[in-house]
Amino acid sequence: MTEKKNTEIYSAAIIIIGNEILSGRVRDNNTAWIAEKLIERGIKISEVRIIPDVKEEIIGAINDLRVKADYVFTTGGIGPTHDDITAGCVAEAFDVELEANKEAMAMLEEYYGPANISESQKKMAIIPKGAGLIENVISGAPGFIMENVFVMAGVPRIMQSMFSEIIEMLKIGQPLLSNTIACTLQESDISQDLEKLQNNYSDIEIGSYPHYRGGVPGLSLVLRSTDNERLNAATRELISIIRAFGAVPKAVSIKSTGEELGI
Amino acid sequence: MTEKKNTEIYSAAIIIIGNEILSGRVRDNNTAWIAEKLIERGIKISEVRIIPDVKEEIIGAINDLRVKADYVFTTGGIGPTHDDITAGCVAEAFDVELEANKEAMAMLEEYYGPANISESQKKMAIIPKGAGLIENVISGAPGFIMENVFVMAGVPRIMQSMFSEIIEMLKIGQPLLSNTIACTLQESDISQDLEKLQNNYSDIEIGSYPHYRGGVPGLSLVLRSTDNERLNAATRELISIIRAFGAVPKAVSIKSTGEELGI
Repeated sequence: MTEKKNTEIYSAAIIIIGNEILSGRVRDNNTAWIAEKLIERGIKISEVRIIPDVKEEIIGAINDLRVKADYVFTTGGIGPTHDDITAGCVAEAFDVELEANKEAMAMLEEYYGPANISESQKKMAIIPKGAGLIENVISGAPGFIMENVFVMAGVPRIMQSMFSEIIEMLKIGQPLLSNTIACTLQESDISQDLEKLQNNYSDIEIGSYPHYRGGVPGLSLVLRSTDNERLNAATRELISIIRAFGAVPKAVSIKSTGEELGI
Repeated sequence: MTEKKNTEIYSAAIIIIGNEILSGRVRDNNTAWIAEKLIERGIKISEVRIIPDVKEEIIGAINDLRVKADYVFTTGGIGPTHDDITAGCVAEAFDVELEANKEAMAMLEEYYGPANISESQKKMAIIPKGAGLIENVISGAPGFIMENVFVMAGVPRIMQSMFSEIIEMLKIGQPLLSNTIACTLQESDISQDLEKLQNNYSDIEIGSYPHYRGGVPGLSLVLRSTDNERLNAATRELISIIRAFGAVPKAVSIKSTGEELGI
């Protein structure tokens, strides 16, 4: 790519609207999917809120997060049923009116056929004044954009399709590289050395995540940085720390390049 | 049970602390697990926030949600490593000091053996003044309780064990029953009838969730209520609506009892 890259990392918040995740009926897979796409582009998810389809909650979350993050992505609540209230909430959050969007109506007519379109389908063309549209090649009804807020469907397949329409509109920050090393040490074995490592590499985000695999406790250690060389150096030191305890470092995922890390 | 049941539904918020979910590295399974346990007890999750281990974010979320919800459950950030900052944030949110909790220290000594306990393990006994403890039979270091805020580990296995220690402390509300009916209709087919159904049963929460299964679009319709009879009646009507479109209603999950719904 010839595009000039920014040295900044941008931030994004996700608002997941709807009761199906809060009730535990459905697990959220959208966050992980979006996170992966954004990190490649140098955009980091700073917060996720899962909220019910309650008007005040939706408006509050949008207005809170659109000033905190560079981008806000909402999923859910833009279909034709009575519980789909996201468009009205976005309009209210931005203090604009809802309107029957002609371009959106044309998209729906093209998808359903002008003669077949029902009143409830037409509801999906009623969106905030001034919004840009996000094409939906899967099921016709578009998502939309108000300033830095991207309003998408909740169904993963449709959300993913909408997301691919907007990704090129987002700024390109510094991609965050991450190396993940696992071992069977305990956090308390390694915590003092990790803290020293963090102090020596204050520019690198070092996370320690205990887990159980097949009943055996272990640790995933994640190092994240936009600087490939520094990440390599910190990863090498981490590997030495693990080996000094007589444990075996296992490379789960290495995104830094150009150097043999010896595992 | 002879315990007198409350007619209220209580609310709970979950704060998931840590970068591993935000980065997409790990999927959140704690929300669904907690939701299921709470719903049986008549407590409904009103909001979930996933935030990074950044002090201001943690304090802000705790102070925001502990007044909005009856209960707040936090997961993550209570281990011995440098990125475990939850205890200090809870103390600051409640404007109390941190202290070396004697009971927590005794728990750690019992788990690790008094001679073996390291300085970094001792860190896990430093918790806010006035907190009650949550026993951790899996890995020793306790969680804790400040007023309506329950602070637990993030590792699912440990979180689940801690949660089983506290569930009996929570008030018992009216359990929310839910019936889920699937069909291969589209939302726009059924949205007007659904809206009528919702208007006739304003006491029942009716959710419509489109999905793709094996590439085929379909709909999960979820009816939720604390009133078994009303839920049965609304479910019967929903089944008729689906059949009126020539579609086949499929019972995904029926929690209401005492009546043959005919599917």
